[in-house]
Amino acid sequence: EFDQIHNYFSLNPLYRASEMRKDTAGLQAAKNNMSTKFVLFSDQKPFLLRSEEPSRKYKFAVFNINQLGTELLERGTVIFLGLETWDPDSNAWFAVDIKEELSDIGPKFFPEGKYATPFPVTMQMEPTQAGIFAEAHSVLCWLDKYKFCSTCGSATKIAEGGYKRVCQNWECSSNKGVQNTCYPRVDPSLIMLVVSPDKKDCLLGRQKRFPPKMYSCLAGFMEPGECLEDTCRREVEEESGIKVGRVDYHSSQPWPFPAVLMLGCIAYARTSALKVDTSELEEARWFSRAEVAQMLAGQHPHGLYVPPGEAIAHQLIKSWVASSFSNL
Amino acid sequence: EFDQIHNYFSLNPLYRASEMRKDTAGLQAAKNNMSTKFVLFSDQKPFLLRSEEPSRKYKFAVFNINQLGTELLERGTVIFLGLETWDPDSNAWFAVDIKEELSDIGPKFFPEGKYATPFPVTMQMEPTQAGIFAEAHSVLCWLDKYKFCSTCGSATKIAEGGYKRVCQNWECSSNKGVQNTCYPRVDPSLIMLVVSPDKKDCLLGRQKRFPPKMYSCLAGFMEPGECLEDTCRREVEEESGIKVGRVDYHSSQPWPFPAVLMLGCIAYARTSALKVDTSELEEARWFSRAEVAQMLAGQHPHGLYVPPGEAIAHQLIKSWVASSFSNL
Ligand SMILES: Nc1ncnc2c1ncn2[C@@H]1O[C@H](COP(=O)(O)O)[C@@H](O)[C@H]1O
Ligand SMILES: Nc1ncnc2c1ncn2[C@@H]1O[C@H](COP(=O)(O)O)[C@@H](O)[C@H]1O
Ligand SMILES: [Mg+2]
Ligand SMILES: [Mg+2]
Ligand SMILES: [Mg+2]
Ligand SMILES: [Mg+2]
Ligand SMILES: [Mg+2]
Ligand SMILES: [Mg+2]
Ligand SMILES: [Zn+2]
Ligand SMILES: [Zn+2]
Repeated sequence: EFDQIHNYFSLNPLYRASEMRKDTAGLQAAKNNMSTKFVLFSDQKPFLLRSEEPSRKYKFAVFNINQLGTELLERGTVIFLGLETWDPDSNAWFAVDIKEELSDIGPKFFPEGKYATPFPVTMQMEPTQAGIFAEAHSVLCWLDKYKFCSTCGSATKIAEGGYKRVCQNWECSSNKGVQNTCYPRVDPSLIMLVVSPDKKDCLLGRQKRFPPKMYSCLAGFMEPGECLEDTCRREVEEESGIKVGRVDYHSSQPWPFPAVLMLGCIAYARTSALKVDTSELEEARWFSRAEVAQMLAGQHPHGLYVPPGEAIAHQLIKSWVASSFSNL
Repeated sequence: EFDQIHNYFSLNPLYRASEMRKDTAGLQAAKNNMSTKFVLFSDQKPFLLRSEEPSRKYKFAVFNINQLGTELLERGTVIFLGLETWDPDSNAWFAVDIKEELSDIGPKFFPEGKYATPFPVTMQMEPTQAGIFAEAHSVLCWLDKYKFCSTCGSATKIAEGGYKRVCQNWECSSNKGVQNTCYPRVDPSLIMLVVSPDKKDCLLGRQKRFPPKMYSCLAGFMEPGECLEDTCRREVEEESGIKVGRVDYHSSQPWPFPAVLMLGCIAYARTSALKVDTSELEEARWFSRAEVAQMLAGQHPHGLYVPPGEAIAHQLIKSWVASSFSNL
């Protein structure tokens, strides 16, 4: 096998079978198949069970059509997540999002289950389940926040297994040609570990909403008309005053709150004098490799720490600490 | 200096000065400054002049406030593009998009200028101007297609120099917390050169809308819950039946029609038997390195060719042809 980084939330084992999305009759048949699996949400909150594994505390409760019933599916928002394998006869998976008034159906079959506020609970799922959660949660949030046509303000209707919204005003230009208004939104964002010019230190910062003592990589949304490296340089300069030269892509991670694509990179600073944008960051400073190693290991003398391994920030930091630059 | 690929459309020389976007009075003052530069659009079509350079045929006509007048700005859509340098006193640039009935203002000052259908004309601009076009065109198209709040259907108002739309219904959840519905959309998409298992061939295809004899890389939009490498593998398998293993990021390119982010990569196939999705592609097949070299050089015996250097597809193909794998 090939060796490639796969971050948490990107280990979805399902084959999305996008060719099935347009087959309304096929999707209907799949919904009524007793082998089909359903995961449940209420107002975009996943219905989860406690799992046995201590470090992977949560898992989906999985339902079948007899348990949920066709009426519930009609009253909820149903999306097609994919098939278990490339075999068209393999089990299909769907997610159903229901309003609170119908939410008793969850505990009815799994009395120990709970609807959970997704963050940070979903950071502690079995990785393949976290991947299924990422797909389902992002699409359901998009369906919830994008009910109206942004081009004309009319109501829209869900199509293609949840992967499209069609404006019900047939005169609307969103129905002419292919328009991005009709498809789920994914927001590309950069997350960067900035390495100092002498390569001895890296730059970490604190957003105001972070828990005390946690430091992480800088990050920022891509803007129209930028390539990945442009965004990295712009955001670092905006937030810290540091000028970045070379930018190396590291890995990426879907961040399903609601649908961010984190593009992780290592950025090489050309300057080191900080001018922190205090409207966005509470603090940002250079950290030595030794100090960061302590933070990663949970052994920092003042209890400073970095995000857990499920966050791409952790992987970027870890890569740098493990990298073979001389530390002299 | 560091050595890094910069694709066409990503050479925008402006400093976006995003901290100025919230300063309404500052932006107003900048608009009225005689040194400020305006580029003009009508219904998202840029107003261009012929340039002297033969390979860079077009450039923006650049206006000042005396030529355009404050009334025209009030009737049009104005966006703040940035400053010429990091110096806050350097010249500001804006783009103005006006309705057809006001469009005579362009030829009034530049009789030889024309409002151009952006594609493919903007592929032949001076690269820094193409970068300014990319920012302006993507944001103006977003403002045009996203006039209504997707969460509640109400009208929205432009804010932050064109980089935000605010729902005018104060009860709307888009006004609570930070919601992506308010910010310009960027659609991440993968474009990949697929290399055969023996590394001798690469996979190129033809979309139905391509000009005859042109072949290019496969490409596809990212979906929610995917990392970059996942999308690459899914889209290649969907469109060609080929299973991809390792995926290496190469470079990226903003593609401002309307706001695509092309993430370019080299993908290593694990299988070679093709099963082309003819609903999306007219054809896809393996090409030897020698044949692709002819296509790149415009010397193919049957006139087959690849996209021009301004397209990231060309750069991916060129990188592979130039790479040092043995061709035996
Ligand atoms: N797609 C988006 N989703 C959320 N916030 C965005 C988005 N695009 C731009 N923003 C703005 O970016 C800020 C966060 O800054 P940054 O992540 O550094 O770019 C937010 O507070 C918003 O004002
Ligand atoms: N953001 C988007 N913009 C345009 N088309 C999209 C988008 N997302 C999904 N699509 C669909 O993707 C098709 C193109 O396929 P591909 O580029 O291979 O993913 C289009 O015809 C649309 O049906
Ligand atoms: Mg930020
Ligand atoms: Mg920022
Ligand atoms: Mg930003
Ligand atoms: Mg495609
Ligand atoms: Mg495709
Ligand atoms: Mg696709
Ligand atoms: Zn519409
Ligand atoms: Zn609203």
